[in-house]
Amino acid sequence: MSLGRVCLAYSGGLDTSTILVYLLKAGYTVVCMCADVGQEEDWAAVEQKALSLGAEKMVIVDLKKEFVEQLVFRAIQCNAIFEDRYLLGTSLARPVIARAQVRVAKENNCDIMSHGCTGKGNDQVRFELAWKAIEPTIKIFAPWRDPAFIAKFQGRNDLLAYAKENGIPVSSTPKAPWSMDENMAHCSYEAGILENPDRTPPKELWKMTVDPLDAPDKPYNFSITFEKGIPVKVVTEDNIEATEPVELFKLLNKIGHDNGVGRVDIVENRFIGLKSRGCYDTPGLTIARLAHIDLEGLVMDGQVRALRDQFVTLTWSRQLYNGMYFSPEREFVENSIIYSQQNVNGTVRMMAYKGNAYTLGRSSETSNLYSEDDASMDSLDTFSPGDATGFININAIRLQKFGEMKIAQGTPLTES
Amino acid sequence: MSLGRVCLAYSGGLDTSTILVYLLKAGYTVVCMCADVGQEEDWAAVEQKALSLGAEKMVIVDLKKEFVEQLVFRAIQCNAIFEDRYLLGTSLARPVIARAQVRVAKENNCDIMSHGCTGKGNDQVRFELAWKAIEPTIKIFAPWRDPAFIAKFQGRNDLLAYAKENGIPVSSTPKAPWSMDENMAHCSYEAGILENPDRTPPKELWKMTVDPLDAPDKPYNFSITFEKGIPVKVVTEDNIEATEPVELFKLLNKIGHDNGVGRVDIVENRFIGLKSRGCYDTPGLTIARLAHIDLEGLVMDGQVRALRDQFVTLTWSRQLYNGMYFSPEREFVENSIIYSQQNVNGTVRMMAYKGNAYTLGRSSETSNLYSEDDASMDSLDTFSPGDATGFININAIRLQKFGEMKIAQGTPLTES
Amino acid sequence: MSLGRVCLAYSGGLDTSTILVYLLKAGYTVVCMCADVGQEEDWAAVEQKALSLGAEKMVIVDLKKEFVEQLVFRAIQCNAIFEDRYLLGTSLARPVIARAQVRVAKENNCDIMSHGCTGKGNDQVRFELAWKAIEPTIKIFAPWRDPAFIAKFQGRNDLLAYAKENGIPVSSTPKAPWSMDENMAHCSYEAGILENPDRTPPKELWKMTVDPLDAPDKPYNFSITFEKGIPVKVVTEDNIEATEPVELFKLLNKIGHDNGVGRVDIVENRFIGLKSRGCYDTPGLTIARLAHIDLEGLVMDGQVRALRDQFVTLTWSRQLYNGMYFSPEREFVENSIIYSQQNVNGTVRMMAYKGNAYTLGRSSETSNLYSEDDASMDSLDTFSPGDATGFININAIRLQKFGEMKIAQGTPLTES
Amino acid sequence: MSLGRVCLAYSGGLDTSTILVYLLKAGYTVVCMCADVGQEEDWAAVEQKALSLGAEKMVIVDLKKEFVEQLVFRAIQCNAIFEDRYLLGTSLARPVIARAQVRVAKENNCDIMSHGCTGKGNDQVRFELAWKAIEPTIKIFAPWRDPAFIAKFQGRNDLLAYAKENGIPVSSTPKAPWSMDENMAHCSYEAGILENPDRTPPKELWKMTVDPLDAPDKPYNFSITFEKGIPVKVVTEDNIEATEPVELFKLLNKIGHDNGVGRVDIVENRFIGLKSRGCYDTPGLTIARLAHIDLEGLVMDGQVRALRDQFVTLTWSRQLYNGMYFSPEREFVENSIIYSQQNVNGTVRMMAYKGNAYTLGRSSETSNLYSEDDASMDSLDTFSPGDATGFININAIRLQKFGEMKIAQGTPLTES
Repeated sequence: MSLGRVCLAYSGGLDTSTILVYLLKAGYTVVCMCADVGQEEDWAAVEQKALSLGAEKMVIVDLKKEFVEQLVFRAIQCNAIFEDRYLLGTSLARPVIARAQVRVAKENNCDIMSHGCTGKGNDQVRFELAWKAIEPTIKIFAPWRDPAFIAKFQGRNDLLAYAKENGIPVSSTPKAPWSMDENMAHCSYEAGILENPDRTPPKELWKMTVDPLDAPDKPYNFSITFEKGIPVKVVTEDNIEATEPVELFKLLNKIGHDNGVGRVDIVENRFIGLKSRGCYDTPGLTIARLAHIDLEGLVMDGQVRALRDQFVTLTWSRQLYNGMYFSPEREFVENSIIYSQQNVNGTVRMMAYKGNAYTLGRSSETSNLYSEDDASMDSLDTFSPGDATGFININAIRLQKFGEMKIAQGTPLTES
Repeated sequence: MSLGRVCLAYSGGLDTSTILVYLLKAGYTVVCMCADVGQEEDWAAVEQKALSLGAEKMVIVDLKKEFVEQLVFRAIQCNAIFEDRYLLGTSLARPVIARAQVRVAKENNCDIMSHGCTGKGNDQVRFELAWKAIEPTIKIFAPWRDPAFIAKFQGRNDLLAYAKENGIPVSSTPKAPWSMDENMAHCSYEAGILENPDRTPPKELWKMTVDPLDAPDKPYNFSITFEKGIPVKVVTEDNIEATEPVELFKLLNKIGHDNGVGRVDIVENRFIGLKSRGCYDTPGLTIARLAHIDLEGLVMDGQVRALRDQFVTLTWSRQLYNGMYFSPEREFVENSIIYSQQNVNGTVRMMAYKGNAYTLGRSSETSNLYSEDDASMDSLDTFSPGDATGFININAIRLQKFGEMKIAQGTPLTES
Repeated sequence: MSLGRVCLAYSGGLDTSTILVYLLKAGYTVVCMCADVGQEEDWAAVEQKALSLGAEKMVIVDLKKEFVEQLVFRAIQCNAIFEDRYLLGTSLARPVIARAQVRVAKENNCDIMSHGCTGKGNDQVRFELAWKAIEPTIKIFAPWRDPAFIAKFQGRNDLLAYAKENGIPVSSTPKAPWSMDENMAHCSYEAGILENPDRTPPKELWKMTVDPLDAPDKPYNFSITFEKGIPVKVVTEDNIEATEPVELFKLLNKIGHDNGVGRVDIVENRFIGLKSRGCYDTPGLTIARLAHIDLEGLVMDGQVRALRDQFVTLTWSRQLYNGMYFSPEREFVENSIIYSQQNVNGTVRMMAYKGNAYTLGRSSETSNLYSEDDASMDSLDTFSPGDATGFININAIRLQKFGEMKIAQGTPLTES
Repeated sequence: MSLGRVCLAYSGGLDTSTILVYLLKAGYTVVCMCADVGQEEDWAAVEQKALSLGAEKMVIVDLKKEFVEQLVFRAIQCNAIFEDRYLLGTSLARPVIARAQVRVAKENNCDIMSHGCTGKGNDQVRFELAWKAIEPTIKIFAPWRDPAFIAKFQGRNDLLAYAKENGIPVSSTPKAPWSMDENMAHCSYEAGILENPDRTPPKELWKMTVDPLDAPDKPYNFSITFEKGIPVKVVTEDNIEATEPVELFKLLNKIGHDNGVGRVDIVENRFIGLKSRGCYDTPGLTIARLAHIDLEGLVMDGQVRALRDQFVTLTWSRQLYNGMYFSPEREFVENSIIYSQQNVNGTVRMMAYKGNAYTLGRSSETSNLYSEDDASMDSLDTFSPGDATGFININAIRLQKFGEMKIAQGTPLTES
């Protein structure tokens, strides 16, 4: 009799294949689940492998649309970024995957969730917090934190030996000396040789972008149109046009890929308090974020923007990074994101070239906030220059008192 | 007898030459002042012109070192940026210029300050708030807000006619159809044809950077070493080395210039509430900021960084943009910047290539925060994976209640 | 022929009566407007006075319900407070008054707005920013900033002389040596003898609260019930019950009044940069705010609360204080307030006694966030104490590195 | 031979006496430590009990001065408060106690720390995070999270039985049906009957304050003088004067105690994510905090105050509550607190009366920020009212565009 029914996040790789077999041998029934969030994968082979190893079922769920519409576009709407550099590619995919896996578990009467995440990383936190929020009574088996499991598998050689012993097929291509995680938003690279933060990532590492040095010698022009802060149309110089969310985002990815846009190499602060080095290539999202920021310059009120930048962008980004998507505070902040975007409509013209994207111009038919006439130094139709005098004088009241005090204290502000 | 002694910020251009003559004809004595903050200028010609037009004196002050050390390096230390894009080049120069002009005024017994800033811009605010803070009793004559002056000079033709009438030499090179402001940190371009936010800046506009398309086909490698968050050494692949602040920053500018790094084109929100379009090329500061952010990833505590990003970087940047340098709140925030940088020591290896700068690796001899051993997924010497279980479970307490409530309300989190 | 049609905020006092006559004599037609926001007033006398002085019309608008429901209740929902002490009584009333006055102006074809606010205060800013936002093309006549008007009326004696000359009736009761502004939320006292910040307000100053020393010797018990953060029912120990917003708030005011609750005496920072001393008695709002904060402890998620406290409460309060009610940023923040209150349902039992209000207990039928079982130290049904070990150990990772660094630097944390 | 040397936080109560005996019987050597942070205690009896039960040593450390000067005064300087109500009395004491206990452990060659904190509370987190930061290699035994210990002692009866069996003296006074923690700053009450959040605390619960109903019928006047935000002198109406920190704070406590000032009853959000109900009486700190806030109104720049309120006060308070005192982020924030206080000098006159403290007036000899002349509505010597017009008009630019857009969208701001 089965000890229980486990829903395992299964990738087809050595780690999760080992976990699958380990669970089966321990007496569990295992339903495997894999999320298609846009990564390159031989899905038939994954399914075949899971079933041949003994999984009761292999469920592959296409989450691309959900991922793009609910997470990636939200990130664009709030210019999400973590620690000034990281566009949160992995963090964005975790909520949709975790939610889908709970659905699969429920449909298949599993009461235990399992994954192959390491015990030091962010992903274990993201998956498990999500699972516990979504289905508060769920049980979790995290093999890489299980004393018996980690005692048995102390390194890759133990995994390979176990695979040999148990007929787990092992890929003949040698494993890259780093680990990768790919989805539509980005590919991440960490661990292995990248753990030396002063070691430059090798040229062959990057998967979703060509090397800027190898990118075309000619800029590539295109435009992105937004409605309520969401990209709704991309048109390129060679008249490719996309409007459906997944297709549109793929087109942005292609533009970014071909022109080498969106590579980032950082040391970041994981939720659990360790620093780690990560490399990311994020072609389409890098471009879309730049365009969105640019358009907001044209159509968003400056005070709203200042509040949003300080409180919403940083907070939402941190919530996503830390795995707090299924939380009241994320819902609270996201309500503000959506509200802030009601007038973010317009088109940004752009160019991609050898590692960079540039804005070339922007326009909006629905916003009155920018006015050439108002902005023009030559036009005084709508502006009384004398008002600026009063504005300055009133703003100076506090500052004059500050200067007087400095003089009284013997440290006048004339001194450097 | 003189009606008073005016200290005029004089650039040698048509506007300030007109103001100079206008003031002299109105009966004032005028001491001209021009700040050398690294812009390209024929200083002898400026001096000769001012004196020939009747200025009592033309004082040229070299502020490059003060500018770089006190403002530019502070901006680097806090990763200063305004509205996600603008590195504040003009804003950074204003405080040192304003302060020097007050010094010149005092040394020359002037009790009236004057400038040629327009009545709709940020610079009038920055100069005048600074002057009033530094010398609270100073008087100000702002011609472009003076009803008589603006009635007399309603357009460029009026200025040209006045110049002809009064023997003011006018440059024979035609004026660019935009205005520019240059200093060591950047060159800004605005107004004129740029007032159409959808018009791409022409290729010849940019002054401090070559067009990325024309940049070398080969990456250029170099490294920047920081102490307490301040760049103290730059070494290039061809063994050019700089350590003196101004020389070091010039070297970064040259690297950025040659490789087309640091062009930005935005619509921004001026302090006075108008939107305006600005283009900026900021070669060295763009590179130094990127390197500094990168190094902080390695050596700054994550929680300190989060607080600094949210409260210090955004606040200091806004203060500088709005002309609030000489204020108690800027001193308050700057105290935090300096404190945050005590351990920001190390070297970042970089590459510049066709419009972009990339980090290649980073190292620090003084920080224990990053540890390959800690970060490694394979090493459990300093880490008990079981702790992560407790960490996750405790963090999940709130989230489980949230999920239970959603279930009770009939909107379970399994739903998209 | 009339020079124009002015809509004047008219109170019946000496200042606005003088402005009325001044405008009429200058050739304007004047429609007077007075808002009933709950202050004590002889409305018939005000109307009679305005008409007898020559106003074309005297419009008295009852705004009590609008004021309580749209402003006061919103302030309660976000625990609004300015500079830790001031509950914003005056600031809350200004938006409804300003909006109503624009309506009156439009209904009566007035294109000029006028008020009797001084040129150094907050209220001029609040009224005029509101008017300009609501009706961007409106014209404004602010007599106390008008050079001719202030030259003519340099002190109270000039006003009295003008009144005598022009048949303006002057109250025979001597003017209090301070100025007051009353509405349903509070009464404010400032200027005159209060300008000395070390002078204790005299016993007779306070209007909306009895002196705590004279309050009953016996506590008074009552309860407040909230739905979505809004008070919907008050029941007292003597079975008085109120549910209609205005009646409910009046009942809270009476409880606060009788028991001397809500007196505040502060020096605050006006928007225009001057410090000023203000005294306020705010009986009902003080009580309601305390009850609301208390209930949120029971029913609001802790992380949502932390975000709300830091970003929403402080920001909304400052926006209201500075007269930025009719602004995109206030709408942006208010959207968050409302969202945060969806589960703030329950009842707070309270007691008022000699200057203070105390919470006695609280309960909610709709929230699962507080659980006696969870909270109890004795119950381990829903809690594994071992999890706390992991939680602590993971949180300690950063701190141990910090401690190690301190030891390495020779300043161990064992030292004080 | 001893299994190890434990340094146990020992209070003399049933719990820690049981832990002491349990450890001794298990084969450990135990050094007991108790911190005198101002609580009422028979120190000789505690020492005698520890030694008689078998402790190798009982170390009692007087931390009152360290506690008041380094923690309580810092809390006053930043107006520390948690969730709008709680003045952090327990949280403030933990850092000095934890640090002293590490010192005792080191002096007595103990390598294991122990405490009697429960497994659901904040204090275990505060002590252990502190210990791990201060001495990163220290070991910890937390009995109430130890499976064997909690299996053995499942309720108070188990403890009493064990006490009887092992000759542990048990107090003959019946235990109050709640738990208490007392120090100079406050006494806290939680658990037991208080776990019902709707149960009013009984009259006899409060220890550090008299019932407001029983407080004197006459107000009590006194003044507090601050230097750099720290109270340096208290003088009362009956000429009691204190200047030494501990004596001064005791005097404030006495004033607060006698007049029933500082009672708070709340439901709060513990760091570990549970809500719990706590009652606190905090007499002296409540008074000092109010006085300090009041003085800042007079002498602190408004913009500095706004930044400090939003970023420093809330952050430092949360850090202390969560046990993050020994952290880089607390040092970072505390640096700002100290900087902000350089001009917070002056005297606040106050009155305490039946549960409340009131400010009566305030003065400062070192600040120029408040000026009666500036504040006065009657004085225009230092103020041009016309400047306010410009200030308003410039601030209105954005708002007018907002209003225009609303009109264009068919939702004019005239509508409620």
